[in-house]
Amino acid sequence: MAIALIIPDRKLEDLQQRLQQALPATPIEIWPNLTNPADITFAVLWKQPAGVVATLPGLKALQSFGAGVDGILADDTLPALPLARIVDPALTAAMLQYLTGIENYYRLRLDTFGAQQQQKRWQPKSPRKLQSLCVLGLGELGAAAALHFQQQGYQVSGWARSPKNLPGITCYAGSAQLTTALANADLVICLLPLTAQTESMLNAEVFAMMKPGAIFINVARGAIVDDDALLAALDSGQLQAACLDVFREEPLPPTHAFWSHPAILVTPHTSAVTRVETVVAQIAENYRRSQRGLPLLNQVDLTQGY
Amino acid sequence: MAIALIIPDRKLEDLQQRLQQALPATPIEIWPNLTNPADITFAVLWKQPAGVVATLPGLKALQSFGAGVDGILADDTLPALPLARIVDPALTAAMLQYLTGIENYYRLRLDTFGAQQQQKRWQPKSPRKLQSLCVLGLGELGAAAALHFQQQGYQVSGWARSPKNLPGITCYAGSAQLTTALANADLVICLLPLTAQTESMLNAEVFAMMKPGAIFINVARGAIVDDDALLAALDSGQLQAACLDVFREEPLPPTHAFWSHPAILVTPHTSAVTRVETVVAQIAENYRRSQRGLPLLNQVDLTQGY
Repeated sequence: MAIALIIPDRKLEDLQQRLQQALPATPIEIWPNLTNPADITFAVLWKQPAGVVATLPGLKALQSFGAGVDGILADDTLPALPLARIVDPALTAAMLQYLTGIENYYRLRLDTFGAQQQQKRWQPKSPRKLQSLCVLGLGELGAAAALHFQQQGYQVSGWARSPKNLPGITCYAGSAQLTTALANADLVICLLPLTAQTESMLNAEVFAMMKPGAIFINVARGAIVDDDALLAALDSGQLQAACLDVFREEPLPPTHAFWSHPAILVTPHTSAVTRVETVVAQIAENYRRSQRGLPLLNQVDLTQGY
Repeated sequence: MAIALIIPDRKLEDLQQRLQQALPATPIEIWPNLTNPADITFAVLWKQPAGVVATLPGLKALQSFGAGVDGILADDTLPALPLARIVDPALTAAMLQYLTGIENYYRLRLDTFGAQQQQKRWQPKSPRKLQSLCVLGLGELGAAAALHFQQQGYQVSGWARSPKNLPGITCYAGSAQLTTALANADLVICLLPLTAQTESMLNAEVFAMMKPGAIFINVARGAIVDDDALLAALDSGQLQAACLDVFREEPLPPTHAFWSHPAILVTPHTSAVTRVETVVAQIAENYRRSQRGLPLLNQVDLTQGY
């Protein structure tokens, strides 16, 4: 019985050390340096190379190192094992802090004043009147965002694939109700999971459903957005501005048009990054549960992909 | 008995109309078109030309149209009459919203990411750890800011000319305690009044008292800051960044070095602007009080200048 950390391109010594403290009797190994692949009964995954998990015959369960699992499910050879994701209050708090900061940024017109500063132009304007907001995706983070902005005085609508019920939020479900959900929102926040259904879902048709002059914020996954459709919606003025923290390819390639578009704010996927110190306990608990055949904390429904 | 609005360079029809509704029996005239200067018993002032007020012999009281009175007191010929300023909850709320937005901007490193975007550079960084904050000036707005950030979890110190007592805030007073007030603050917010004592008070010596790498925010008056000393403190790295909403000369001249300094965010005096709709009642009430010889609401202590 051993745990494999299969997380390329990240220093893992700290995670290894802390997990070892939580599980003193269990070997914790960093892929690709596995003593005996057959001993691995639990794997912590993030952007693992396709095919690697399938080479570990003793696995009982899989654990995503983050809130998303799309990068894990992208592997066609992944065995059909219980898969858990991280649901971390610190992650939710970091996401709300990011969204609050971005909402403030646009409310105070710091985008406009930043552009004016570059032109040495003094043109006072009162804050934007942002009153209504739509959250696409009502999972852990989406529901938290919807409730947060509702408490801040926003009129909030939410949309998800299946019906949801959140106090004070007008919830819509299914593609037929997307138009209504988006129609009046000054701000649209994307917190959808990336699945086969949501890949490129935010296309020209959907941007056209939004309120003219809406501001779009993507903190979910870049591939949910049709990049060219977003650029066209900004160029036509259908959208006023966009803040993008996630991209189809990360790091965002230097040649991508998003970098230099005057109505786009690019942040380098910093809205909510898993922190080792806050997730160790959750991973250790899921390891224990997996070895006893118990359901995992925050187990993903593999038929839905989230 | 009549009221004069002496506020150059601003459209005043809306103010005139709303004041007229509040005071139906009182003529309300816009300077310089006064029917009979001797009839004016009350004047609403903002950046009035020097000498004008002294030409109105019937005045009983003066009312600033904003929270500050430095522009009014700059007139050496101003008669020694009761002078009131606006204390407006909406103004305080707007100031707190501005400061919250700027605090979020720096916490999320939107300054850094904005610069990286211009260079098409992807370099993720976790949010700045901002924990302690000093508010210079503990009047209406300064006290509100100190309490607001204390409630947000900041360790807050405050400094004022004379001793203050605010719950949860470590208050310092007088020039001897300025070093201690500033020493540990990650953020320094200037909300001092502009007086003979505070003019150019934030000079090289004071910037050197701040914590190395501190972020400075000026939402008070530009003339409180020694511009060259601020630029030198940013160039040396003693200060990490500055957000300036107010300037010695406004509009900030296109030739000024603040516009193009990479560590300065310029906003065009938008942190808290008096709104007609919220101040009419206060002005009308002070007019009534002045005509009955009662003390004004929010009367300024002329010996202190605020």
